[in-house]
Amino acid sequence: MDNEEISVDQPRVFDARDFRKALGHFATGVTIVTTRGEDGAAIGMTANSFNSVSLDPPMVLWSLARSARSLPAFARASHWNVHVLACDQEALSNRFARAGEDKFAGLALDPCPSGMPLLPGCSARFQCRSAFQYEGGDHIIFVGEVIDYDRSAAPPLLYVTGQYAVAAHKCGPVAGAGADPDAAQTGPYSEDMLGYLLGRAHYQFMARFRPALAEMRLSDAEFFLLSLLSVRQPLGASEIAAHMAYTGVELTLDALQAACARGLLQVQAGGYSLTPAGNDAILHVLAAAKAVEADLGAGMGPVQATALRNLLKTLVSASDPGLPKLWP
Amino acid sequence: MDNEEISVDQPRVFDARDFRKALGHFATGVTIVTTRGEDGAAIGMTANSFNSVSLDPPMVLWSLARSARSLPAFARASHWNVHVLACDQEALSNRFARAGEDKFAGLALDPCPSGMPLLPGCSARFQCRSAFQYEGGDHIIFVGEVIDYDRSAAPPLLYVTGQYAVAAHKCGPVAGAGADPDAAQTGPYSEDMLGYLLGRAHYQFMARFRPALAEMRLSDAEFFLLSLLSVRQPLGASEIAAHMAYTGVELTLDALQAACARGLLQVQAGGYSLTPAGNDAILHVLAAAKAVEADLGAGMGPVQATALRNLLKTLVSASDPGLPKLWP
Repeated sequence: MDNEEISVDQPRVFDARDFRKALGHFATGVTIVTTRGEDGAAIGMTANSFNSVSLDPPMVLWSLARSARSLPAFARASHWNVHVLACDQEALSNRFARAGEDKFAGLALDPCPSGMPLLPGCSARFQCRSAFQYEGGDHIIFVGEVIDYDRSAAPPLLYVTGQYAVAAHKCGPVAGAGADPDAAQTGPYSEDMLGYLLGRAHYQFMARFRPALAEMRLSDAEFFLLSLLSVRQPLGASEIAAHMAYTGVELTLDALQAACARGLLQVQAGGYSLTPAGNDAILHVLAAAKAVEADLGAGMGPVQATALRNLLKTLVSASDPGLPKLWP
Repeated sequence: MDNEEISVDQPRVFDARDFRKALGHFATGVTIVTTRGEDGAAIGMTANSFNSVSLDPPMVLWSLARSARSLPAFARASHWNVHVLACDQEALSNRFARAGEDKFAGLALDPCPSGMPLLPGCSARFQCRSAFQYEGGDHIIFVGEVIDYDRSAAPPLLYVTGQYAVAAHKCGPVAGAGADPDAAQTGPYSEDMLGYLLGRAHYQFMARFRPALAEMRLSDAEFFLLSLLSVRQPLGASEIAAHMAYTGVELTLDALQAACARGLLQVQAGGYSLTPAGNDAILHVLAAAKAVEADLGAGMGPVQATALRNLLKTLVSASDPGLPKLWP
């Protein structure tokens, strides 16, 4: 290996931004590493350069820039804590990624035998004794022995290609993003088609609380109508139509008047609104829908349910036909 | 820091499996690291202990168990390549995670100046010169200087809490999995509710290809019917009803006969099937649906579209009311 031609070892000059982008293809969790300065002051910073190293003895590592203001403190510290952040701790991640403010202001800390700051609400935490510090170019690699750890049910926060994310676990073989979704199946209609999956998921969800609809003698159209008014009322007939047109469900004036006749709606100055009976009916059905959501969430697991809500929001936003805003 | 009480530094005895689980809360990508033995034989293994270290000079690291059969080869190697796997390379990951077989059998390699094995189809690749080897408990930490790299549009494969995954990027603030989805909003009906998001996503998708339905003069019920028969035919009236009941759309015998009268369906010995005109109509609509899917996929990005399809499959499976199998 002493005979390598110099051309092989001569790195090409990298565009720093592009190189960072390439590194970002390797997904990571997000951690906050904490310690205390010589004066006892709490110190912490966001890092995604964490990884496991050894099981016996239990060891982990992370890297810190030589230029970091907190380097001297970490270099001297006997102990530090690594907090693997949960998916709802994005704000905390941002707070500890910025310099200059009192990052710990207002934060409650859990008790920690080593005295190092221990933040609550994380997906996992590793209390470490500093073991080795190694050279790593413009960074120092910190290796610590894990003295204690804990973990929670909170799904972890991810950082992938420069963005926060949550994990969507794979369910059976999935066509690659570039692949033709139909490649695996012959017909024109495939079970990998997004439209099929959306429809089937929607109707299976609806089917689970259809008994509650039947109990309240509500059609799908009436359910959409009452849901809408539970968020925003009163609404005029044309406003109602504007909110509901994308469902393909036509709500005629006759249907609105029938709902009034049944005592579900009333007409006021500003338009239609729920009567107490209409309000009771929609609350009953929404409670059933929430029970279905809780049940399916338990079946899918919290990580997946969170990820699915995220992605549906992204899709709803990408496919929004310009609906009037429903929630304030 | 020399005065630490011994109790602080005395690690409690960890259950190895539980400790691994806690480490698994830190999400990672999946890499395959390759090199060549002294005899020139290609060597490679799956590792998720990769991370970036330094930007200037560009450096990365990963860890290898002291007990690994490939340790001597990597310890002697002048160069190694890190392949950040794409989400459709799960099989490759499994192949390189197992010992004993010829992992490179049948694999095409890309040319690589250092001569080390370079696998195609990855999300990103880093060609490295071995720089440092550090002690890390039962592992050796390999630090390499990046000589060259490349990246592709392929979404990366993830490994989180012991499972493969893909990234679901966050879209606006999302309630934590443990949190009440309604916490942020007052009413009983919230825009974080899964049922709402599913319905809105489904109907917005439908709304995009509704013009194609109108062109073919197909109602939603007729579209469901023709889609069903495009996958499996002939089907009897009761079989059709069994497949469609969960949508809440009732398909009467009258409606079936009307579809026959319009020349979309025909009755054969085994039941209803598509006429050539019915086949043309559904192909036209499905082509429109695929165009919508491609358009939204481009809007969401391939990672997100892949993740969404994954999660919808998980939800469909979790909420399946026991539908007859549609695809073979």
